[in-house]
Amino acid sequence: MWSTQRARWGRLCHRAMSSGSSGPLGFIGLGNMGGPMARNLLKAGHEVVGFDVSESNLSAFAAAGGQALGSPREVAAAARTVVTMLPSNPHIREVYLGSSGILAAGGASSGSLLIDCSTCEPSVSKEVAAAADERGAVAVDAPVSGGTIGAEQASLTFMVGGSDSGFEAAKLILELMGKKVVHCGDVGMGQAAKLCNNLVLGISMAAVCEGHALAGRLGLDQKKLADILNTSSARCWSSDTYNPCPGVMEGVPSARGYTGGFACDLMLKDLDLAHSAAFSSQPRLALPTGGLALQLYSQMSARGHGHKDFSGLYEHIAAGPDKSS
Amino acid sequence: MWSTQRARWGRLCHRAMSSGSSGPLGFIGLGNMGGPMARNLLKAGHEVVGFDVSESNLSAFAAAGGQALGSPREVAAAARTVVTMLPSNPHIREVYLGSSGILAAGGASSGSLLIDCSTCEPSVSKEVAAAADERGAVAVDAPVSGGTIGAEQASLTFMVGGSDSGFEAAKLILELMGKKVVHCGDVGMGQAAKLCNNLVLGISMAAVCEGHALAGRLGLDQKKLADILNTSSARCWSSDTYNPCPGVMEGVPSARGYTGGFACDLMLKDLDLAHSAAFSSQPRLALPTGGLALQLYSQMSARGHGHKDFSGLYEHIAAGPDKSS
Repeated sequence: MWSTQRARWGRLCHRAMSSGSSGPLGFIGLGNMGGPMARNLLKAGHEVVGFDVSESNLSAFAAAGGQALGSPREVAAAARTVVTMLPSNPHIREVYLGSSGILAAGGASSGSLLIDCSTCEPSVSKEVAAAADERGAVAVDAPVSGGTIGAEQASLTFMVGGSDSGFEAAKLILELMGKKVVHCGDVGMGQAAKLCNNLVLGISMAAVCEGHALAGRLGLDQKKLADILNTSSARCWSSDTYNPCPGVMEGVPSARGYTGGFACDLMLKDLDLAHSAAFSSQPRLALPTGGLALQLYSQMSARGHGHKDFSGLYEHIAAGPDKSS
Repeated sequence: MWSTQRARWGRLCHRAMSSGSSGPLGFIGLGNMGGPMARNLLKAGHEVVGFDVSESNLSAFAAAGGQALGSPREVAAAARTVVTMLPSNPHIREVYLGSSGILAAGGASSGSLLIDCSTCEPSVSKEVAAAADERGAVAVDAPVSGGTIGAEQASLTFMVGGSDSGFEAAKLILELMGKKVVHCGDVGMGQAAKLCNNLVLGISMAAVCEGHALAGRLGLDQKKLADILNTSSARCWSSDTYNPCPGVMEGVPSARGYTGGFACDLMLKDLDLAHSAAFSSQPRLALPTGGLALQLYSQMSARGHGHKDFSGLYEHIAAGPDKSS
């Protein structure tokens, strides 16, 4: 029974891939991330049809050689493979399940391959995949890391959740937009990997911020502390690759006033999704440290620094009474 | 003025070293860490005189070839170089500044070298060093990482705070008990480095525990998550070298029921010292994430698991309602 279903999916995916190479690809969500990702598909020689709620995003896409369409449904009708890159849960539900959505009547057909590169709750990816399955289409979740620079340079990492055949089919498209495509498990597991990773990242960055803040109060040289952390049991990416303390490293956001990089508000979004996923799991899961990190980045954002790189949390942790506002 | 003082210290340290190689070394605090450390000095061919408040520790030291004396003052009178390895702030104050202490009349003399390998607040190291300076002795703080196994195998790392000449003199002794001796800055900076490192470590371990706990609830394979963390922005020692989730790695405490390793209660002690140092700094420093980690390890300890490795926090984070007690 299952093997028959898998064989059918395999054939469908193969058909989707074949038609993908002859017909156009679809792309929905052409903003800061999706815009450059779609351009990389165009650069690779594909025809791309697209949609975005923003007229200016859609115009930029057309100017780069894409064909603008009027709704997600129209994109899914015109393209057998559709990539989506959307802000979060509600936008994904609307674009896939709404009345003019990818899976509405007249949209995606049997054999379509739907690749969602957005970050959302794993339960939303599962909901979308089940709805796709009812129409004979295959959906995979493929959230990214690498930011806007990775999107522009086609150096993103994709964490993919889906069947083996869905993964293999999606990989051929994703490799045109990134360097690394990891199969994390079944549908939703790409999202799970992304949320768990960014949960650990958000907390460990806060840890390094507090370590450097304490070193500052105690008079320990900050570069000396980084040397010690980086060769000992506190070694981590937030310390050895992306150190948040100004003066320790060159070429990182802390060396340029926390501009560029990964915005605090985006880290907040991922921590909020991790919180929601933990809160709604059975049995419910408490994430005490993750919850606190969520509050700390919220505070940073509330103070007007949500657009700054998330390592700017250092300033909020380390600041004395006259510098924290 | 300063250069004259430094030159005098240099001569004193040199004299201490010279006499150290002809006369005995002193060792105070001969427990789980100090015992094997003192044995490594004996193995290196030094005479060692020692003291411990525990009769059994002192007997074991004597059985290994050491000479037991009656007080810290007697040890300091007999040895020009004294190493101390004590539990925390009050024991250090008592052993150095008490009425039968190292710096009491009839104890350490001008030119003595005093090496404190205990972990304590940097302010206590500074207090001891100032008192030593009044007697013409030189004190350095040299807290360790590497645990009891490192103490036995002479593979400890020492983080040293003190003058250049004090560091150079202490290094010759410390190298007999460890592999790595790092000069962190002036007096107290060894302690500062140790506390900042373990603050970051304690928090990042909690982060990895929460990441794996969330992965478990979401159905993500734990080894797959570790692979993703270890090659991405959440990479850290707590994930790639000392993973807390059973089944992910071999040869770590999580693979053997959290036995061995670095006890939760010892992590708690260091987090408490970091808290105290931050609390008493000017201006006062809040360590929100470190403070929460302190509470989480306290909870683990209060549930009767303070003797287990600190990565056992995973069980307390991940456990469902029937498994948390």
